[in-house]
Amino acid sequence: MKTLSLLRSAAWMLVICSNLQARANNITADDSTHQEKYVLVIHGGAGTILKKNMTAQKEAAYKAGLEEALKTGYKALQAGKSSLDAVEATIRVLEDNPLFNAGKGAVFTHDGRNEMDAAIMNGKTLEAGSVAGVSTIRNPISAARAVMEKSEHVMMAGRGAEQFAKEAGLEIVDPSYFRTQERWEGLQKALKADSMKSKLDHSYQPAGKLGVENIDNKFGTVGAVALDKAGNLAAGTSTGGMTNKKYGRIGDAPIIGAGTYANNNTVAVSCTGWGEFFIRSVVAYDLSALMAYKGLTVQQAGKAVIEKVGTLGGNGGLIALDKNGHAALPFNTEGMYRGMVTAEGKITIEIYK
Amino acid sequence: MKTLSLLRSAAWMLVICSNLQARANNITADDSTHQEKYVLVIHGGAGTILKKNMTAQKEAAYKAGLEEALKTGYKALQAGKSSLDAVEATIRVLEDNPLFNAGKGAVFTHDGRNEMDAAIMNGKTLEAGSVAGVSTIRNPISAARAVMEKSEHVMMAGRGAEQFAKEAGLEIVDPSYFRTQERWEGLQKALKADSMKSKLDHSYQPAGKLGVENIDNKFGTVGAVALDKAGNLAAGTSTGGMTNKKYGRIGDAPIIGAGTYANNNTVAVSCTGWGEFFIRSVVAYDLSALMAYKGLTVQQAGKAVIEKVGTLGGNGGLIALDKNGHAALPFNTEGMYRGMVTAEGKITIEIYK
Repeated sequence: MKTLSLLRSAAWMLVICSNLQARANNITADDSTHQEKYVLVIHGGAGTILKKNMTAQKEAAYKAGLEEALKTGYKALQAGKSSLDAVEATIRVLEDNPLFNAGKGAVFTHDGRNEMDAAIMNGKTLEAGSVAGVSTIRNPISAARAVMEKSEHVMMAGRGAEQFAKEAGLEIVDPSYFRTQERWEGLQKALKADSMKSKLDHSYQPAGKLGVENIDNKFGTVGAVALDKAGNLAAGTSTGGMTNKKYGRIGDAPIIGAGTYANNNTVAVSCTGWGEFFIRSVVAYDLSALMAYKGLTVQQAGKAVIEKVGTLGGNGGLIALDKNGHAALPFNTEGMYRGMVTAEGKITIEIYK
Repeated sequence: MKTLSLLRSAAWMLVICSNLQARANNITADDSTHQEKYVLVIHGGAGTILKKNMTAQKEAAYKAGLEEALKTGYKALQAGKSSLDAVEATIRVLEDNPLFNAGKGAVFTHDGRNEMDAAIMNGKTLEAGSVAGVSTIRNPISAARAVMEKSEHVMMAGRGAEQFAKEAGLEIVDPSYFRTQERWEGLQKALKADSMKSKLDHSYQPAGKLGVENIDNKFGTVGAVALDKAGNLAAGTSTGGMTNKKYGRIGDAPIIGAGTYANNNTVAVSCTGWGEFFIRSVVAYDLSALMAYKGLTVQQAGKAVIEKVGTLGGNGGLIALDKNGHAALPFNTEGMYRGMVTAEGKITIEIYK
């Protein structure tokens, strides 16, 4: 590990922009001679984000939100804190921002609730924690970390997870805290589309099916991956899930290996997209396995796993950061809110393809 | 796919017993010239199962339970039903049998509840379904299948999953249906051990930690993997989880990629053991990835993933069946209830190493 760490420190900062894949979008960073390399990459969700539908004001607000999150996490890394600390701090900022579908501003379930999922993983120890279907924990990412560090379990759901979070001393809020008018209107729109579909299509199954038409605002997961000065990777993801999801649905975000994974030997990954397809493809771990077993680069592996999701009929994106600080940010949707701070402190933020 | 299917049909039935790994235990089956190859492998949980602690009567009851399950699933395969049908039918028998920690006879949570998890996956389509933390569905494996086939989701938890199962027409029972005296006594024993530990060890964290001493009866998951006449693989797992688990804990069984995975291109897998370690190691998908990306056999890959779990400090076992009908049944515990029906209808059942 020591040799590896020295090698890492001596290595050049390389964030390679892959142009091989039209649908994958990578952010380029300059090379650097910094010895203490630390990198932070975030996403604020992938989906049908079109410039023509975006106002300048809204775009600026999203960018400001991403920047605030990046600065918070980067400051932690700069101060020598762990990648785990940086990931948690970064995601808390995004959870507290009502623009993103995580924490405050989470989308509504079919029954008009906000049910949130989150996961975090430590690439050094392979310890992980996650919560699913929680409605009273202000910062689900911190609950995921508490599950990892203070329970004997990896994954906890519903009221049991809420009870545990309370005992662990986390901030508990009334479920109404998460409600925003925009998300409520999003649910009404989705419910109307559902009922229209039922009327128009006699073969439509009331219980829904995987093939059901995808709705724009289903995707708004947030996530962060970081490499700290000690060479440790961490990944975290937090989400309100899909608008109009059925009561009790769990997406990929809190599933270790699907939406979230970190391993110092390979890569840290956080996904966003149509969760069902990401679960079936075990996306985050598949990316790691392609690097470990087939020797693919993070860009090649990122491209491959998003293509697999596409082949099944799903869409979304992910952020991945390898042990050497190389990042990939592929997606097969119209856009993905994303950003990065390189070792020089250079911030890059992008939304569209 | 047609060529592959023909190749499969023409291939010899080979179930190779690997003696390379002292801790892995494989069941040998004879070669066969059957053209319509179909194989069924099951487990009834891994753990500290010692012959010295077993009465002849109890051992006979376990073997009879495994045999009944095997015969049920095999009959389905023989009749030309899908591997999915066979897996579901097999697991329903084990769920209904109070000896196994799934369905009736599930272990109790810390709070004295029975919270069950189950998952099923179709290797042909990569469709999957799972339920977690359900207390009122008589056969959780059928609920998992309903989630896969009748919902737009892959994973559903708690009351939302129960509500869905009811709407899907599944049999709903009072939570008391699952209660058995033996499991209740198991919880009391575990609670006593917990409280003794708290008294003896000042550094013991009340909330528990991953390092907490493992208790014998934590493992009793059931699972089945099958290859049908059409060459399609399927996998399913059902469990009551760990005795004394905290309210809301989700184990590896319902997590696609961790406790359950099936892919016609590689393998069908069902795991049993200390779930937290199986989640962190993404065991079922890792086995598939080792075969797909590194060209390992099912025996080699099975051995490798159980060793990884052991390296992290966990234990358990799994059953894996590859697309050619080769099976591996590795475990690093004292025993694993397991059995198999070969293409000739030969039933083998084993418990110890």
